[in-house]
Amino acid sequence: MPSRGEPALTAVPHRDAAPAVARTPLDELTALVADDIAAVNRVIVDRMDSPVALIPQLAGYIVQSGGKRLRPLLTLASARLCGYAGESHRALAAAVEFIHTATLLHDDVVDESNLRRGLASANAVFGNQASVLVGDFLFSRAFQLMVEQGSLEVLRILSQASAIIAEGEVLQLSTANDTATTEAAYMEVIGSKTAALFAAACRIGAVVAGRPQTEADALDAFGRDLGIAFQLVDDVLDYSAAQARLGKTVGDDFREGKITLPLILAFARGDAEERAFWRRTVEELDQVEGDLARAQTIVARHGTLAETVARARQFAQKAVAALAPFPDGREKRALAQVVDFVVDREY
Amino acid sequence: MPSRGEPALTAVPHRDAAPAVARTPLDELTALVADDIAAVNRVIVDRMDSPVALIPQLAGYIVQSGGKRLRPLLTLASARLCGYAGESHRALAAAVEFIHTATLLHDDVVDESNLRRGLASANAVFGNQASVLVGDFLFSRAFQLMVEQGSLEVLRILSQASAIIAEGEVLQLSTANDTATTEAAYMEVIGSKTAALFAAACRIGAVVAGRPQTEADALDAFGRDLGIAFQLVDDVLDYSAAQARLGKTVGDDFREGKITLPLILAFARGDAEERAFWRRTVEELDQVEGDLARAQTIVARHGTLAETVARARQFAQKAVAALAPFPDGREKRALAQVVDFVVDREY
Repeated sequence: MPSRGEPALTAVPHRDAAPAVARTPLDELTALVADDIAAVNRVIVDRMDSPVALIPQLAGYIVQSGGKRLRPLLTLASARLCGYAGESHRALAAAVEFIHTATLLHDDVVDESNLRRGLASANAVFGNQASVLVGDFLFSRAFQLMVEQGSLEVLRILSQASAIIAEGEVLQLSTANDTATTEAAYMEVIGSKTAALFAAACRIGAVVAGRPQTEADALDAFGRDLGIAFQLVDDVLDYSAAQARLGKTVGDDFREGKITLPLILAFARGDAEERAFWRRTVEELDQVEGDLARAQTIVARHGTLAETVARARQFAQKAVAALAPFPDGREKRALAQVVDFVVDREY
Repeated sequence: MPSRGEPALTAVPHRDAAPAVARTPLDELTALVADDIAAVNRVIVDRMDSPVALIPQLAGYIVQSGGKRLRPLLTLASARLCGYAGESHRALAAAVEFIHTATLLHDDVVDESNLRRGLASANAVFGNQASVLVGDFLFSRAFQLMVEQGSLEVLRILSQASAIIAEGEVLQLSTANDTATTEAAYMEVIGSKTAALFAAACRIGAVVAGRPQTEADALDAFGRDLGIAFQLVDDVLDYSAAQARLGKTVGDDFREGKITLPLILAFARGDAEERAFWRRTVEELDQVEGDLARAQTIVARHGTLAETVARARQFAQKAVAALAPFPDGREKRALAQVVDFVVDREY
């Protein structure tokens, strides 16, 4: 869920098959941590292995297909920004990716109530039960990787982030199909389900480098604002006509009745007929051919996609500002580039 | 899952509503750790709380209803057996219960393929998605509790146990509906899905007490053999006519096509007609009224319930023998009592 619209990051073949569409590529970042990310990929492949064959099969399906690995990249770059010269950050970056993958697997679990939703995720191929259990396996592996690195502080940060992610996901479930959901509730959801892991991924970079609390806090703030910007843009992309033209899947949120900012703003500004439309489609999930197109037309008419992107840009600026305590240089440029990458996706 | 037939331990109201049916009560153990278990219950209630209301609602449904808390009791008693006089074991016992509860929630997730199964678990009330996410929350909370106690060794033991549990669950999924499942595969499944947490729950008692490796290993062996005995008896109870007479739910494994030892032994000894029966009912899940009764008759005729119980008694004896390095006394008697409790359930 956190990264469903994320181009090529999660690399679920059917969903993100098209290459990343970014005006700003991540070349600075990728060059900076090329060796590190190769090592992370080795750890990932290595540690998702198991004598129980279904585990690497299913985990590989979602984790191994060459995604951009945005969250582990943040851990690697943050550690480098803090002058870290060791190798512990690689295992921790892999742990971050495992946690992210586990949440993806668990987020895709389907209830009886929405079996009609268009399915093409790991659980559609392997079943709900296997997806849940392999998610648990990866989550446990993440903690094993952390334990091996020996930092209780890292364990504290990522166990806390994991609890907050789960809270955010449950809160999102509670607001689903509810057009009365407030902007504040939505911001709470994305702050928890998405931004908490971005923040933690960055913070542990400072921790592994043994840097003072102020730097850990700065990287935490950077990651958090970046994560919020990321999710805002993700939620825009789900209604994006441009994405649809590029052959990307859009409309997942709409079909599931997930309440995101473009919808919240459009509902607030809509007339009675539009509100009736939203109630039928996302509250009652009574959807017919053409409803997604109409939803896209309505959000476009009210300018709520542009407004959501503008909101994302504000968080992006805050994220960049949070890096002020750190010296200028390649590492900082690389992290700033991630911010551009996140907000400049095609919508 | 590990403890579905376990009387009143998990206290899912609809499933384990009847009181524990044990010839040997746990009075010695309960008296020994009365203060501790009260403290554990406070930690559990306290730490399953969340501003997201659905979390304590759902978690409370499964965790709070006064179960016997067998696994945390093992942690408490093991620590006491090792002469531990502190309080850390309480939080760790709560962490063990959270991990167990998370696995219960996740084990009950339903696939589209078996929606017809008779549902009455947390996921039937709250839905698959909420059950998965609250399981994740409890799992994360377990790690937060461990981090607060500050022992990397405990974190190592329980993160490893969690990974093994997940592997066991996936392996069980792979053997489901497969009458060719071997005894060895079954033993592997129960060693992982059930015994690994029993072993870890006991081992951390020695670790928190700062005892040498030999004692940790002895308690690990005790817990592992106890866990295997426990699961063997659980799998017998699922076919037990006596349980059915007591108003307990039986036949869950049969209805789900789960392959357990009573079935494996009966299949091996059955004639062509019986094998055809097993193939239709547990492989194809094509079941009609009266099939469970026929399954019970077949396993009884081949004596496979008694044989499975006999196997459980062997593991129970091994478990008691594993306690040899420890001095006789109240703590050891209490743990031996748990063994009797586990194997002397009504079947």
